[in-house]
Amino acid sequence: MLLSRAIASFNAGALMIPNSSSSSRVRTPTVGCIPAGAMTIRSGPDAARVLKVEPQPLKQVLDLQPKPVKQPIDRRPATKLKIAVIGFGNFGQFLARTFAAQGHELLAYSRRDYSAAARSLGVAFFDDQHDLCEQHPDVVLLATSILSAEKVLRSIPIQRLRRKTLFVDVLSVKEFPKHLFLQLLPPDFDILCTHPMFGPESGKHGWAGLPFVYDKVRIGESEEGAERCRSFLEIFEREGCRMVEMSCAAHDETAAEIQFLTHTIGRVLAKLDLKSTPINTKGYETLLNLVQNTCSDSYDLYNGLFIYNKNSTELLENLDVAFDSMKKELFQRLHGIFRKQLFDGSSAQ
Amino acid sequence: MLLSRAIASFNAGALMIPNSSSSSRVRTPTVGCIPAGAMTIRSGPDAARVLKVEPQPLKQVLDLQPKPVKQPIDRRPATKLKIAVIGFGNFGQFLARTFAAQGHELLAYSRRDYSAAARSLGVAFFDDQHDLCEQHPDVVLLATSILSAEKVLRSIPIQRLRRKTLFVDVLSVKEFPKHLFLQLLPPDFDILCTHPMFGPESGKHGWAGLPFVYDKVRIGESEEGAERCRSFLEIFEREGCRMVEMSCAAHDETAAEIQFLTHTIGRVLAKLDLKSTPINTKGYETLLNLVQNTCSDSYDLYNGLFIYNKNSTELLENLDVAFDSMKKELFQRLHGIFRKQLFDGSSAQ
Repeated sequence: MLLSRAIASFNAGALMIPNSSSSSRVRTPTVGCIPAGAMTIRSGPDAARVLKVEPQPLKQVLDLQPKPVKQPIDRRPATKLKIAVIGFGNFGQFLARTFAAQGHELLAYSRRDYSAAARSLGVAFFDDQHDLCEQHPDVVLLATSILSAEKVLRSIPIQRLRRKTLFVDVLSVKEFPKHLFLQLLPPDFDILCTHPMFGPESGKHGWAGLPFVYDKVRIGESEEGAERCRSFLEIFEREGCRMVEMSCAAHDETAAEIQFLTHTIGRVLAKLDLKSTPINTKGYETLLNLVQNTCSDSYDLYNGLFIYNKNSTELLENLDVAFDSMKKELFQRLHGIFRKQLFDGSSAQ
Repeated sequence: MLLSRAIASFNAGALMIPNSSSSSRVRTPTVGCIPAGAMTIRSGPDAARVLKVEPQPLKQVLDLQPKPVKQPIDRRPATKLKIAVIGFGNFGQFLARTFAAQGHELLAYSRRDYSAAARSLGVAFFDDQHDLCEQHPDVVLLATSILSAEKVLRSIPIQRLRRKTLFVDVLSVKEFPKHLFLQLLPPDFDILCTHPMFGPESGKHGWAGLPFVYDKVRIGESEEGAERCRSFLEIFEREGCRMVEMSCAAHDETAAEIQFLTHTIGRVLAKLDLKSTPINTKGYETLLNLVQNTCSDSYDLYNGLFIYNKNSTELLENLDVAFDSMKKELFQRLHGIFRKQLFDGSSAQ
């Protein structure tokens, strides 16, 4: 499948270049658009409570954000899984470390040779995907970049896997891999689309309280399939992640604001080549940290967030409109003060 | 003096409306432009060390930022000052609280009646400036908004003050009040322009480690005048502020990046009406906090930072260029991938 078709399948006509002179209004927040019932949240290992998600005033919600819970983690897995990580770069290794620490059996394949890194994590590295698939993993985890996901998925010799394998992805966009999986995997394979909304930097002190989004796109009705999916999700529950069940579409709508906006601000500021000075305010240090954190992620990730999330274009346009409107306000007010002086002869204010 | 003349006196021709289609390059950082020797830093009560300030790589400088030092504060003043705060709003009260706690005698005047607030802080409130001036304060501290500074300064019956009074301002821009003071105050009066780069929000847990910028614009050669100025600066040293001596011009150049940029980003994001969601990343929460902190300051402050700092226009233009360049990169890369498919027939990456 060509990229153009992959995008077109969920994104018909949405990729228009925003016009900076556009007069479109700044839109209301995307989170308000998530369909009722599209999202449930569980927190901590055995939590069964379901939080109702409704847009709330900023201040209030900030105060209500659950704090990360530090508690000893029971690392013995309820069911030991054999997990094959396909794409063993930075993020794949980051996840595998915790999976292995919980006692699961880890295999890995990558186009580049990461055998040394794998060895240090207790992970069996394969340089041949046929060999890996013949190990019959319970879970195949796609941990490539967004841009190479299709190519890598097409390269897996899925005929060597057991028919009841669970396929999972951890990409930062969700509609795109969902459609890829549905299109390329035979109906016997189960599909779970996930997004751990953290990484090696934000999750370096543990995953407690950090959001983990998932959508059970296609989980077979057999008890075995359901159990395998449950066991995989339990890995994140045990680490104390905030478990958020959400449709892939709702994820992409919300994440455009959350991820793409944050990365855009960070990367625009990076272009200004800001320097730390002896008179930094706290707010300015916030911006410096944002630049540093954003630019420690790859440009491919940022580019992927843009290309593979149809909501990013609208977000970029809204930001454009907001910036233009801010400038207009500043200059109108300046002119207002001058006019007042010219016509009334009065001084400032 | 009309606003137009006040601005023109230090800002000739710089107030041009930025053009979003401008092709001007994103400039190098302003801090690199501070003339050598224009700035010295002292830290803590008795510190005598002088730091040399040179632009450094972001990561390195962030690590090197001095951490706020928590140490017991000796609140007995070396010399007890009689300080008159003119403009007793939010910021004036915030400063007066600490001045009073250090044992200084506080007087206050404001166009609005803040007598109750003054009483609770142990400050003598005056509703007549003549009465206040007849008290012969050692220091007159101008703590108005930037926009009303000129009007308020002109309203003070300075003929009732002793000729050797020290005038201090705490505005967020520095060239403007410096020129106002030099133009409106008789030569007998001393002038100290300052900018405590914190406020009721960022300084609510104490001032230790927070930057205090000052420029001894005109301090008489008498021992008495020098001592009065030293005693005033000691208030901030005793609280552990990072004391930064810097010319008003250098301050405005650096602060455009630090303050105006931070406020602009916060206010542009505020227009997007961002909501906290169950899947906030840490970076996104940074943005939410920035919006909240920026918008808790008055719009007048933001407007003042723009109108009364000639460097703000250039900063706004640089931000415009950076944003346009970011968009261009995103769309060029998108088109590049499409073109590759069209002409080479290859798949993504």
